[in-house]
Amino acid sequence: MADPAQKPLLAITLGDPAGVGPEVVVRAWNDPRIHEVCRPVALGHPEILRRAVALTGSSTRVEVIDSVSTIAQLGLDPSATHNIPCLPVGSDDVLDAPQAKLDARSGQAAYEAVVLATRRSIAGQFAGMVTAPLSKAALHAAGHHYPGHTELLAELCGVDDFAMMLYLPKSELPDSRAGLGVVHTTLHCSIRSVPGQLNPGLIAAKCRLANAVMRDGFGLVDPRIGVCALNPHAGEEELFGNEENLIISPAVGMARAAGIQATGPLPADTLMVRARDGEFDAVVAMYHDQGHIALKLLAMHRAVNITLGLPIVRTSCAHGTAFDRAWQGTAEGSGMVAAILAAAELARRNFRFR
Amino acid sequence: MADPAQKPLLAITLGDPAGVGPEVVVRAWNDPRIHEVCRPVALGHPEILRRAVALTGSSTRVEVIDSVSTIAQLGLDPSATHNIPCLPVGSDDVLDAPQAKLDARSGQAAYEAVVLATRRSIAGQFAGMVTAPLSKAALHAAGHHYPGHTELLAELCGVDDFAMMLYLPKSELPDSRAGLGVVHTTLHCSIRSVPGQLNPGLIAAKCRLANAVMRDGFGLVDPRIGVCALNPHAGEEELFGNEENLIISPAVGMARAAGIQATGPLPADTLMVRARDGEFDAVVAMYHDQGHIALKLLAMHRAVNITLGLPIVRTSCAHGTAFDRAWQGTAEGSGMVAAILAAAELARRNFRFR
Repeated sequence: MADPAQKPLLAITLGDPAGVGPEVVVRAWNDPRIHEVCRPVALGHPEILRRAVALTGSSTRVEVIDSVSTIAQLGLDPSATHNIPCLPVGSDDVLDAPQAKLDARSGQAAYEAVVLATRRSIAGQFAGMVTAPLSKAALHAAGHHYPGHTELLAELCGVDDFAMMLYLPKSELPDSRAGLGVVHTTLHCSIRSVPGQLNPGLIAAKCRLANAVMRDGFGLVDPRIGVCALNPHAGEEELFGNEENLIISPAVGMARAAGIQATGPLPADTLMVRARDGEFDAVVAMYHDQGHIALKLLAMHRAVNITLGLPIVRTSCAHGTAFDRAWQGTAEGSGMVAAILAAAELARRNFRFR
Repeated sequence: MADPAQKPLLAITLGDPAGVGPEVVVRAWNDPRIHEVCRPVALGHPEILRRAVALTGSSTRVEVIDSVSTIAQLGLDPSATHNIPCLPVGSDDVLDAPQAKLDARSGQAAYEAVVLATRRSIAGQFAGMVTAPLSKAALHAAGHHYPGHTELLAELCGVDDFAMMLYLPKSELPDSRAGLGVVHTTLHCSIRSVPGQLNPGLIAAKCRLANAVMRDGFGLVDPRIGVCALNPHAGEEELFGNEENLIISPAVGMARAAGIQATGPLPADTLMVRARDGEFDAVVAMYHDQGHIALKLLAMHRAVNITLGLPIVRTSCAHGTAFDRAWQGTAEGSGMVAAILAAAELARRNFRFR
């Protein structure tokens, strides 16, 4: 990408300041690949960022910026070093919050960075946003009652039809055409409640979201979407449940009627193997563990979380705050790098749900 | 193993004659590793076996045997070639049954071989048995109404407390101590019915079975058993279900009280990664896909099925009859080899549930 002005400006939030977020952001900044494809801007408290720089022993400098016009010019000078431009967010209270511990002040700081990144992305000042992990419990402690990032983003963007996709880049899955995306029909709920939550419209909507991102975001002409069965052996002719015939087959029919190359319901265990081996570009899972067991085995910390259904690009590393390992200087930045690279690819194609 | 008489005699059934069973048995026979650790005897119709030999282009000869005394002497001559001694089972009807298709005559032949192998193993004529895949539908068509091998074996052996373990040998998981066994608490049933089937006694029983086979069968002094949660994030403090606190934690407590190193409930997605990486020797899964998604990704066709709870050694390859690929000369014998090697190891330690 020769012209720096073509490189998308991406907002990178620090996540919960007490977790591994600030450190993984700094480590990602030190990876030259991200600067080849985007112009990243950190959003958070500059002092937290400086602490993370010191923790990693990096020689990077944090440069506080504050105006829209400055942001738009960032990184346009090809001789510029890769210092960290930081758009400051939040109060100085966070500087007194303990590291590696749940704290309402940290939760508040994480919240404010997400809100700012989202608003400025909606306004077009950023081509997309990448978030470092936040703590749901700290978010709750700060009075913000969301199950996680995804629901907060959906509310800020005013959308109802959204989903979390976990995406493994092609670098992790060499047999894939454009990586592998896994969308969950249900996510943070009990197994007992899963069958009652499934309906054909919901599943077909996930197929549409998966299809759109693999086609318009990752450039595939004809994404192949594999849809998991709920029951083992896809119910084996209704011996082990009838949700396949009553709910999932009609959903696949709806998706196909909408021109989507959806296939299923397929037994989840073999579908995951076939998807890994390149036979599908995306998988629609029925519940959390169905997708997560496969994804974690395939690429524990290098999966990318992509929020589907938003009018903006938003990705995240798939790992959490890891309070047990935070601020020890041992966190690994590859998940954040993968998230930034994916966001840059989506932003480059000007992808968004409309 | 210098003394051939120390090598266990193993009964190897051909499975459904229309499926890939006969071919994978012949392919396994051509692998010298199995003859180093056991003296295998095929159980089935000799003519079916000869057809499979012809299919594979092997120069192996099928030698029909029929007496107990002959069997006991098999393989004791160290200069003996690795021809296939075959104990004939079943009627000639099977010779007219179509290849690669479901047929009651094939189902009957598969059934009779399993019954004979089981009875002769119980009687001590064989040190254990290894089964090639059968078709449940063909079994049903022949009037034998069992969900699969496991339940048939349990009935023939008169046991109530049994389980299917899928076992990945150490050759598939180099970071493990003695491979990895996965036992399912529930198996061939709908997801909807899983929560209602779980109870502490049932889960603790699976822990005991897993512990026994990893300790007495595979020689570990202190097997480490990881127990899966039912719900995502192990229920996250009962936000997504309470089965962890009500059912699974008490089960782990019961297992620990019985001296078993059981840990859990642990979120299934990370437990599977930790088990792959050598932190656990066996995993107790709550339902089919929880275990199978991981196992198939880790070693699709080289998992070994071990029936726990029987007074005999019984293993099987984990793949099915594969009618769509049967009798084409393209089947792969590595799953059957793995099953025979595992059975030989269990038989060498004289392992059985008592």
